[in-house]
Amino acid sequence: MIMKESDFLTWIYSQNGFDPEKVPVGPGDDMGIVNLDADTPLLVGVDQVLDGVHFNLALHGAEAAGRKAMARNLSDVAAMAALPVGAVASVALPKGFSQNDAQQIYAGLRKLGDEFACPLVGGDVSTWAGPLGISVTIFAKPAGATGGIKPVLRSGARSGNAILVTGQLGGSWYGKHHLEFVPRVREAILLGLKYRLRAMIDISDGLTKDLGRICKASNVGAEIWEDAIPIRPGAGKDRDPKASPLDAALNDGEDYELLFTVPKGQVEKIMQDVADGKIPVAISHIGTITKQQTLTLVSPDGSQCPLTDGGWDHET
Amino acid sequence: MIMKESDFLTWIYSQNGFDPEKVPVGPGDDMGIVNLDADTPLLVGVDQVLDGVHFNLALHGAEAAGRKAMARNLSDVAAMAALPVGAVASVALPKGFSQNDAQQIYAGLRKLGDEFACPLVGGDVSTWAGPLGISVTIFAKPAGATGGIKPVLRSGARSGNAILVTGQLGGSWYGKHHLEFVPRVREAILLGLKYRLRAMIDISDGLTKDLGRICKASNVGAEIWEDAIPIRPGAGKDRDPKASPLDAALNDGEDYELLFTVPKGQVEKIMQDVADGKIPVAISHIGTITKQQTLTLVSPDGSQCPLTDGGWDHET
Repeated sequence: MIMKESDFLTWIYSQNGFDPEKVPVGPGDDMGIVNLDADTPLLVGVDQVLDGVHFNLALHGAEAAGRKAMARNLSDVAAMAALPVGAVASVALPKGFSQNDAQQIYAGLRKLGDEFACPLVGGDVSTWAGPLGISVTIFAKPAGATGGIKPVLRSGARSGNAILVTGQLGGSWYGKHHLEFVPRVREAILLGLKYRLRAMIDISDGLTKDLGRICKASNVGAEIWEDAIPIRPGAGKDRDPKASPLDAALNDGEDYELLFTVPKGQVEKIMQDVADGKIPVAISHIGTITKQQTLTLVSPDGSQCPLTDGGWDHET
Repeated sequence: MIMKESDFLTWIYSQNGFDPEKVPVGPGDDMGIVNLDADTPLLVGVDQVLDGVHFNLALHGAEAAGRKAMARNLSDVAAMAALPVGAVASVALPKGFSQNDAQQIYAGLRKLGDEFACPLVGGDVSTWAGPLGISVTIFAKPAGATGGIKPVLRSGARSGNAILVTGQLGGSWYGKHHLEFVPRVREAILLGLKYRLRAMIDISDGLTKDLGRICKASNVGAEIWEDAIPIRPGAGKDRDPKASPLDAALNDGEDYELLFTVPKGQVEKIMQDVADGKIPVAISHIGTITKQQTLTLVSPDGSQCPLTDGGWDHET
């Protein structure tokens, strides 16, 4: 049987056997959590970027590839509302790679890491016959003055919660957003300090798919409102003039925006804070968590249709 | 200029700018160390295994590849005399890989991790047009009842120290040692509990090269005694009947044995403890750290020759 990534991940998550005292959160959230000792949770995430999948070396260059590797990992830290502590990288370099290009990868990793006080404390480099692959592992700790912000998991959404999302969605790969986005680390910590975040994820595989992950982890469903979804101008159109911007916003992925839920009563304050400039990012209230475990898209005319999982899965 | 791994790493190590309060050990040792808070050092290491470089998928199979990825990382933990806490893995899978083979990689990673109480707390899987690559990042903390064993760096060797090595050297790739070795995590902690380890490294690139790394980090040199080097039976011979077993022991690499230095006065006790079965591994006393910053091989007849750096470097 040919492997499908999503099936493989589902299988991995089923391989339990963790001591919950030592590993409170195993694979399956944005980051795992392992307890170094009773008082010291360590958050750990790993994400790779591969030539031809997550970037195109010939088109985007080595520095952009390095930057994206670090950015995806910082985005995972943001999804937990945690504070980055450090990172390590392994790089598989194609034979004949130039020293200058190798240094560009490092520069891309390092510059963005430095911007988030996230030092690159180790690495591994090997040359091989394959294409360029960069894997970054990032580690983080609970944010807040005394680590008081509990890491926000995917599993905390409750029926009646409001669903919110930062920024704009769609068209990321076709524009350059997927290479240039600034991970929402600071925004996430600010949200964690000010509001009761119930569940959070960063949108890497598309709103539909990643909202589905929150719902699955939380044993809930969701309805989202078509006219509330913040669509990036031009989303979809840049690859096909007939493409649906809504479809791009729902399914393109690589947005790296924060998708989160809060108790319904907090929405008004959040929206007021955004309007008052206290939260320096656009936030849209796009739907409601439901008890019924389905995903539904509600049109402006009130008609409903089931949201199918159109997010991409790199299968063969 | 075509990139040479060793040049690239030297360049990376020169890119400083770490806050020593936050990152007491940056890239360039077996693991980096980052302080989570004032009392909590975290050791982090990363090592990848690539098809065609570190294993041969067609020949060795997927489980052996996964096992080796975990084993190399555990060996880095051993080189610091530290205690593994957890690991994450990223896997770049060739298109068309079977679900079963993917599960075998995971099994290889997980089985060895479990044996060392090192849970796999996260992962990333992507399918691409390239060959199989597996990157593991491992986390560790100081070993000992209350974390009392300080991580052993490469930089602690002092003139007059005795040089010792566990096990046997050479012929690892040509035999199956590089796939089947058991990382010396337990032995390293035992050594750290009982003796004053000054410097330590695991031999991945050959005795000459890795001893050179200790000497360079410590600003010292070394002389080693030809007839004291523990050569694996058949080393070198299995690939070429005319090969020199000594050359294989010095330069083959992939031994994953512990190479360490102690104050000269401790050697007698160590050898007695090994003879008494208190240390469950063979240990050879192979030389002396010198003030003069050269590597010298001393023949049984007393003649000396400079040790050239014959360890392999995956350059193009």
